[in-house]
Amino acid sequence: AARRGGGEMAAWARAVRGLLLDVSGVLYDSGGDGGVPIAGSVEAVRRIKASGLKLRFCTNETQATREKFVKKLQGMGFDISVTEVTAPAPAACRILKERGLRPHLLVHNALVPEFAEIDKANPNCVVIGDAAENFTYANLNEAFRVLIGMEKPVLISLGRGRYYKETDGLKLDVGAYMKALEYACDVQAEVVGKPAKMFFESALAEMGVPPQEAIMIGDDIVNDVGGAQRCGMRALQVRTGKYRPCDENHPHVKPDAYVNNLAEAVDIILQQL
Amino acid sequence: AARRGGGEMAAWARAVRGLLLDVSGVLYDSGGDGGVPIAGSVEAVRRIKASGLKLRFCTNETQATREKFVKKLQGMGFDISVTEVTAPAPAACRILKERGLRPHLLVHNALVPEFAEIDKANPNCVVIGDAAENFTYANLNEAFRVLIGMEKPVLISLGRGRYYKETDGLKLDVGAYMKALEYACDVQAEVVGKPAKMFFESALAEMGVPPQEAIMIGDDIVNDVGGAQRCGMRALQVRTGKYRPCDENHPHVKPDAYVNNLAEAVDIILQQL
Repeated sequence: AARRGGGEMAAWARAVRGLLLDVSGVLYDSGGDGGVPIAGSVEAVRRIKASGLKLRFCTNETQATREKFVKKLQGMGFDISVTEVTAPAPAACRILKERGLRPHLLVHNALVPEFAEIDKANPNCVVIGDAAENFTYANLNEAFRVLIGMEKPVLISLGRGRYYKETDGLKLDVGAYMKALEYACDVQAEVVGKPAKMFFESALAEMGVPPQEAIMIGDDIVNDVGGAQRCGMRALQVRTGKYRPCDENHPHVKPDAYVNNLAEAVDIILQQL
Repeated sequence: AARRGGGEMAAWARAVRGLLLDVSGVLYDSGGDGGVPIAGSVEAVRRIKASGLKLRFCTNETQATREKFVKKLQGMGFDISVTEVTAPAPAACRILKERGLRPHLLVHNALVPEFAEIDKANPNCVVIGDAAENFTYANLNEAFRVLIGMEKPVLISLGRGRYYKETDGLKLDVGAYMKALEYACDVQAEVVGKPAKMFFESALAEMGVPPQEAIMIGDDIVNDVGGAQRCGMRALQVRTGKYRPCDENHPHVKPDAYVNNLAEAVDIILQQL
């Protein structure tokens, strides 16, 4: 089982200077009222910080502002601050400002404050996130009408996830609604968030670490592992969160190593330093 | 302008034995409370029937049972009966019976009676139609969960329209929601209704007319004209309903002739007999 055990990491793990951590499914499991830390993860984050490695939390979370999201994690015991989080909404705001885009927002109510400083009058693009209960028939028709009314429709999507699991069952994620609007308007969305290359690159820039000296640790074989590898990073898949055994037979993506959880990943990486 | 005027129809129109008519945009324009007949269309249907040509109404309508739909048209003065209508829901019912499929329905409330005789317990497929107000977040998640829970998801879609116009604005059509479920479940929907070949073929079989002796008349360049031509039929596009001048530059589909409306089409066809 080459590439499967921690032993094979030795050669390249010695060069590591920075870690990117996915959050949901790596640090904690999300549940109805918040979530519970995955065993060993609180301590693992502490050990990374003590080691002197650079650290960045790289999440596709769009159901809350970073402030709220970080508060939730701090409440679980994690040593994390807002400035350490790379998330789609702030990345989208940078793009909107750079290109003079004024968004019509189809996002979760709790995410709206992230766009407080963005001009939203007379919209010339649509930004779609995981709007959850805001994915109503009326709201989807409204976003569609804004798009189809543009000479050249611009659709920016905060992620392209297909679905996720909550305590009351599976839910369609933003990617499904993105596809609906893409088809209706014959347009291709610009995806902000993992697995977009630009998203990983901005996380690396914020750390000041080149891709070949960084390791991504995530539970999502495509969005975390595949996305990071396409940026030239090494990537580990944890066997927690949305990991499934069939991921190990994925037709296109092979992690550089599997680990049982974040704690094990940190054990192995710190041993190489 | 070859193929553009009625004159060029002569050669093949002489062989015609049956007509397929699209309904919305050809017979009437839909509006808030029902719709209004397109000038000359009521009389045109009467003249077709008097001529001895076989006639079939071929519609993608899935917001009402055929009974209600036909009553609305009769109310506008059209000579039409339920047995003359080919519509997606009955076609889907045939498929469900043939293959022993038990549907979870995500359709308009008014369409549900069409599935009255179908076993819907313990579903092993999802049937999606233009559910309109029934396209709620909860209903979409429910249909998704049924699909993703199957070993091999079966999704049957009553059409693949992108959007349509109502008096209060543009609305996303079934095709957009079909794409959302296709993406989330990594499955390809089976489309019943125009432009599916099987749908036109069943309309032809019901008339007892081979494709080369039938003419389709519709306002939709892709679903009516393109679909019928791929079945070996001739097809005319009317300049009513959803017709737009840019249709005449469509990259893939060229009608066998253009006509201003159904009345003109019938004039020209009956002259050839």
